[in-house]
Amino acid sequence: MDIALAARRRHSCKAFDGERKIPPELFGQLRELLRWSPSSTNSQPWHFVIAATPGGKARVAEAATGLFAYNAPKILDASHVVVLCARRDMEPEYLDALLAQEQADGRFDSEEARTRQAQVRGFYVGHQRKAGTLDAWMQKQVYLALGGLLLGAGALDIDACPMEGFDAALLDETLGLAAQGFAAQVIVALGYRSAGDFNAAAPKSRLPEAALFTDI
Amino acid sequence: MDIALAARRRHSCKAFDGERKIPPELFGQLRELLRWSPSSTNSQPWHFVIAATPGGKARVAEAATGLFAYNAPKILDASHVVVLCARRDMEPEYLDALLAQEQADGRFDSEEARTRQAQVRGFYVGHQRKAGTLDAWMQKQVYLALGGLLLGAGALDIDACPMEGFDAALLDETLGLAAQGFAAQVIVALGYRSAGDFNAAAPKSRLPEAALFTDI
Repeated sequence: MDIALAARRRHSCKAFDGERKIPPELFGQLRELLRWSPSSTNSQPWHFVIAATPGGKARVAEAATGLFAYNAPKILDASHVVVLCARRDMEPEYLDALLAQEQADGRFDSEEARTRQAQVRGFYVGHQRKAGTLDAWMQKQVYLALGGLLLGAGALDIDACPMEGFDAALLDETLGLAAQGFAAQVIVALGYRSAGDFNAAAPKSRLPEAALFTDI
Repeated sequence: MDIALAARRRHSCKAFDGERKIPPELFGQLRELLRWSPSSTNSQPWHFVIAATPGGKARVAEAATGLFAYNAPKILDASHVVVLCARRDMEPEYLDALLAQEQADGRFDSEEARTRQAQVRGFYVGHQRKAGTLDAWMQKQVYLALGGLLLGAGALDIDACPMEGFDAALLDETLGLAAQGFAAQVIVALGYRSAGDFNAAAPKSRLPEAALFTDI
């Protein structure tokens, strides 16, 4: 497998073919990718809303309003739309639930291992909270999942359009995310490009190697 | 290709085989992955330091000190180590350089297209700056690249250990990153696990589907 080829081939899709759907088996792989995405101290500070129905996509598209109206057609015409959300807090109850899940999944072969995991995660969370960066830290983990999703889509020849341009507060209300303790971060429309996708033909651009890498 | 399998198989490696190196062709793919990673408005607000020599790895490992000393062996024993850095600012000169690169790469078929790209990126950057979230926004893009790197490593059967636990201010000094306008965000050690990697045998743990997904 040449995974770099998938990365290089991938383009942000600007217009989707509204008739063409992602086969369930392939979308299932992307769902798995999201589920198994890594996160700092396995904190999984996220939630994913998946809109695969016309009604669901219309609800998401409501947030592509005002200055962001240009994003609405991508959401409506895509095969599947994922709203990647971050947690708004990391309460002790949530940390307990993570630990219980890890125990149930067989991560700990001793009481010490369980205690150590609780301490390490507690240390990182406490450090971020004290520094006032807990929100940003949780959001970064969501972007980590986003990076996997976009590369995974590329590897499966699925076109993706990641969007930061939407009314997040409105979407948090529309989808009831705020009430559940989540905050929408980024929307990814997924499907197959239409003939109207100007970006498919445009070459990708990146800064030169020398600007990107230092070898030591 | 079943990319979800790569995601599921991937474990954070806790101990590397110091004798086993990543073949250059495979590491080249990871380098390509980083280079072609997407970012919001193609802002590429990052820099990657790659340590492939004993001396380079030792310099990075200096930052695994104090509370973070447990991370030093992973850095020293890995085949390759990547320090993912974010920009500290997004100056007008940098935005000009991005635009010039895009022009040179043939992204614009008209003066209007070029102007529109400058306006859209300027709008997003200005919005983040006004909101006081420019740093966090740039750092999120680095995590996006991180997500691709970790999945890509998994797809190539390369073990990876992402680390947030290091003295970033020290590393920024040691590697001269601060002077270049970069800030280290996360270190990824890459290579092949040793027999001492307890995490290789431990099952992965994730929250149940119902906690992770909402389908609409």
